[in-house]
Amino acid sequence: MTNTIDIQKILSGDRRSVARAITFVENDTPGAELFLSDVYRHTGKAYRIGITGPPGAGKSTMTNKLAKHYRSIGLKVGIIAVDPTSPFTGGALLGDRVRMNEVEMDEGVFIRSMASRGSLGGLSKKTREAADILDAAGFNIVLFETVGVGQSELDIAGAADTTVVVLVPESGDGIQAMKAGLMEIADFFVMNKSDRPGADQAVMSIKMILGFRPHDEHSWMADVVKSTASEGIGIDTIVAEVTRHQEYLTKTGEFEKRRSAQMKARIEEIVSDKFIVTFWNSDRKQHLERLISQIMYRTRTPYDVAEELLKK
Amino acid sequence: MTNTIDIQKILSGDRRSVARAITFVENDTPGAELFLSDVYRHTGKAYRIGITGPPGAGKSTMTNKLAKHYRSIGLKVGIIAVDPTSPFTGGALLGDRVRMNEVEMDEGVFIRSMASRGSLGGLSKKTREAADILDAAGFNIVLFETVGVGQSELDIAGAADTTVVVLVPESGDGIQAMKAGLMEIADFFVMNKSDRPGADQAVMSIKMILGFRPHDEHSWMADVVKSTASEGIGIDTIVAEVTRHQEYLTKTGEFEKRRSAQMKARIEEIVSDKFIVTFWNSDRKQHLERLISQIMYRTRTPYDVAEELLKK
Repeated sequence: MTNTIDIQKILSGDRRSVARAITFVENDTPGAELFLSDVYRHTGKAYRIGITGPPGAGKSTMTNKLAKHYRSIGLKVGIIAVDPTSPFTGGALLGDRVRMNEVEMDEGVFIRSMASRGSLGGLSKKTREAADILDAAGFNIVLFETVGVGQSELDIAGAADTTVVVLVPESGDGIQAMKAGLMEIADFFVMNKSDRPGADQAVMSIKMILGFRPHDEHSWMADVVKSTASEGIGIDTIVAEVTRHQEYLTKTGEFEKRRSAQMKARIEEIVSDKFIVTFWNSDRKQHLERLISQIMYRTRTPYDVAEELLKK
Repeated sequence: MTNTIDIQKILSGDRRSVARAITFVENDTPGAELFLSDVYRHTGKAYRIGITGPPGAGKSTMTNKLAKHYRSIGLKVGIIAVDPTSPFTGGALLGDRVRMNEVEMDEGVFIRSMASRGSLGGLSKKTREAADILDAAGFNIVLFETVGVGQSELDIAGAADTTVVVLVPESGDGIQAMKAGLMEIADFFVMNKSDRPGADQAVMSIKMILGFRPHDEHSWMADVVKSTASEGIGIDTIVAEVTRHQEYLTKTGEFEKRRSAQMKARIEEIVSDKFIVTFWNSDRKQHLERLISQIMYRTRTPYDVAEELLKK
């Protein structure tokens, strides 16, 4: 891996360069930041959609079908599948790639898995950077896909213009969705596998919970749409709902506001990452190493040692 | 809420003081750190056990039964239920508290829910601090319970001496467990609801995957034990496996090593938290506010603005 990637090749949409660039960024290769600064100047055209939900809700299938739909109207689609996968098993390759085979031979679709475990630096930083690369490379739509029961769906919501939460009738009476914290990040819900028993009731219970969200007449009202993604049913409705949300964001100025807020969070993350790298030099690491046994024997405490290190 | 909590009352095990102290820490009340430094000097007696696994695996029931077991042999038990809950719904109270009612009237058991969303500072920092308070207050066993499909189970594994991953036969052929990244944090597995069909097969497939983990003759070999926690079946086996793991850790010196490594990670988190609080003063916030539109118009990039802020 060389330390330079030709930005012109990215801008021309060269797939191999895009793939290399994402790896470059994922590995925190020296020079990555300068490169990303260049990339960033060429972004701003792609619309970013997050797809999240509990395991088994059919997110990969839906992402696949949405990509196919956007391709059918001539748009190029980048897919970033975020996998909260163990570095031990390296399991990232097992699932999503298999189920995405409908689109993965298509030159207008670029699919990339990113593992959230064991990554240096924040995942949200890296998914945004990968999306920037895809944006600069001329992909019109970036789809983020991740399982939504932890942190990665927050990262995705923080990187997306529209966040879609996919549920299935078995996701329960909505309490599970609330517990998983998916309610406040959803711009709308999809009740997938809606041919199954209990779908209408599940839709109703989500709608009821949504009714309790604080809102006024200008607020975006998250809705619930139904689909059976595996058979392609409801995909056009989902696309229409994304468009409706996009129009709402643009019309109300929320789009700029949301992107600004996301950018502030992104800068905070960049600052923290830079601080950590600079702070933990070998000198401070050795100092901590020397003090650790005193902490273990309770003659020092983690707080005063942290203070001492910060003053060093 | 006053800014002082009497450390003597904590040491005497006064429940109201313990509850207040955890709230004090959870809210990052001024003075919390000084207080925690005092608390830390009185820790080191409690054994810390993490219970994690997918939603619906029966973790709360198992935690409840384990607490009852430890009570029956005269030990005091603190329970910290970490809930990846939305601040919007405030859902933390819905689930766990209800199902813990078998032990919650017991004076020798202290139960506390902590929400992972919307908390200032890292969750892992706060769960450790709550555990320190319980430890100093004379609780012999601290049980951490959390859903394991994201970040919070890593936080728990980073705070526990023994991490137990609870699965059910429906958790699938092990691939889901791998994908959720639970494999590398488990000190052992519990196949709960093992009266259900497919339990033996599920146990076998986990054992098979475990066999692929790199190990030598001195390594701890994670095992899979069976339970039906709702009926109290297998609880003694789980307790025996925890004891076996504790003995392994002590005998091999792994206990000290693990606690040292956890302490280093904890200090890194304290340092980062302190940095963020100090760095983002009103001056730097305003500076970022002024530059944000230039970033949005791509005349500046997030990277050079981060650099500028760090140099300020």
